[in-house]
Amino acid sequence: MARWEPDAYGRLRDAALSLFIEQGFEKTTVAQIAERAGLNRRTFFHHFADKREVVFAGQGEADALIATEIRAQPDSVGPLHAAAAGLKLLARSTEQYREGAVKLGPVIAASPELQERELAKRADLAGTIAAALRERGTADQTAVIAGWAAVAAFFVARNRWNQPANRRTLAGLIDESLEQFVSAAVTPGDSTAGPGVPDGHGLLDPLR
Amino acid sequence: MARWEPDAYGRLRDAALSLFIEQGFEKTTVAQIAERAGLNRRTFFHHFADKREVVFAGQGEADALIATEIRAQPDSVGPLHAAAAGLKLLARSTEQYREGAVKLGPVIAASPELQERELAKRADLAGTIAAALRERGTADQTAVIAGWAAVAAFFVARNRWNQPANRRTLAGLIDESLEQFVSAAVTPGDSTAGPGVPDGHGLLDPLR
Repeated sequence: MARWEPDAYGRLRDAALSLFIEQGFEKTTVAQIAERAGLNRRTFFHHFADKREVVFAGQGEADALIATEIRAQPDSVGPLHAAAAGLKLLARSTEQYREGAVKLGPVIAASPELQERELAKRADLAGTIAAALRERGTADQTAVIAGWAAVAAFFVARNRWNQPANRRTLAGLIDESLEQFVSAAVTPGDSTAGPGVPDGHGLLDPLR
Repeated sequence: MARWEPDAYGRLRDAALSLFIEQGFEKTTVAQIAERAGLNRRTFFHHFADKREVVFAGQGEADALIATEIRAQPDSVGPLHAAAAGLKLLARSTEQYREGAVKLGPVIAASPELQERELAKRADLAGTIAAALRERGTADQTAVIAGWAAVAAFFVARNRWNQPANRRTLAGLIDESLEQFVSAAVTPGDSTAGPGVPDGHGLLDPLR
């Protein structure tokens, strides 16, 4: 084996995801991941803080981009839609990974450990959004609530996007879930499900 | 000591909270809590699953009441306000514990372990609300987003309510944060903080 490892990160990630899908997250060890990638444990920990981080790799790095996109929205755009603009930027860079996300859905749904980490990632993302909204003048309380609502819209959309039969873009699904929420939240009546709601239950979101 | 322990639950809770406030959450052991309460470890674990549960005790038991209150809202009430009605029921039963909540605020803010548990409790509460909203006819996606938005409004309010100088009720603060959010989320402009926003930053919410 060459001393320089070409794309160790990608090989480790592919090996880990294959193993998680084959035998589940909890049963997979870092040693197994490294072995399948033809690398060693030390190389694994050079690239990932722990086994859980493989699943969420790259997510945190998007924070700065999301915040910049939110701050770049014109004043005429309200906080929820400014937040959505940031999340759609994230969505567009995620689109190419749908195949892997389809396979990861059941892995996350089956693992309390991964759900716990996803919850922490959601809180980070909500905090990033709230901070960006405050910087463009949104009142503190509203920024926090809008951050959590936007993140919920993102994950609702993600959990439809990563269904095997889905053919729509993540950004399009984010728009749909947010518009539905905004219209239902402000109209007084609530006794019927609005149009454009193809699926009721059964979405893969253990955290909803 | 009598064989029957009068109000073991309350004594353990009081002892635990005093110790958390005096020496921090992480440094406090279950043995210390039991000793201060004049009880033993076994009695502690009869009442609480672990040390973290003392801080959140009783919160889970409110689920059924919240869901019932949400389902009882007339059809004319939208999902966010129906969710708020459930949370205000919880708020009213919490009002009498403000003194303890003021002391607990910094304890939670200083403990990553407690923040993690609080995040899990938020997810549970959001799920309870979403399920109740679905039962009254709210579309699935909107129910999930409304659940998270309402929970965010609750915690934003809670983190103002548990400030030492606060004199307002938790229910009143929930109403205020939700109304502010609803008006800001739907009005196009967002360049200025609205009225009725006395505090900007510095709220004790490590999870925002």
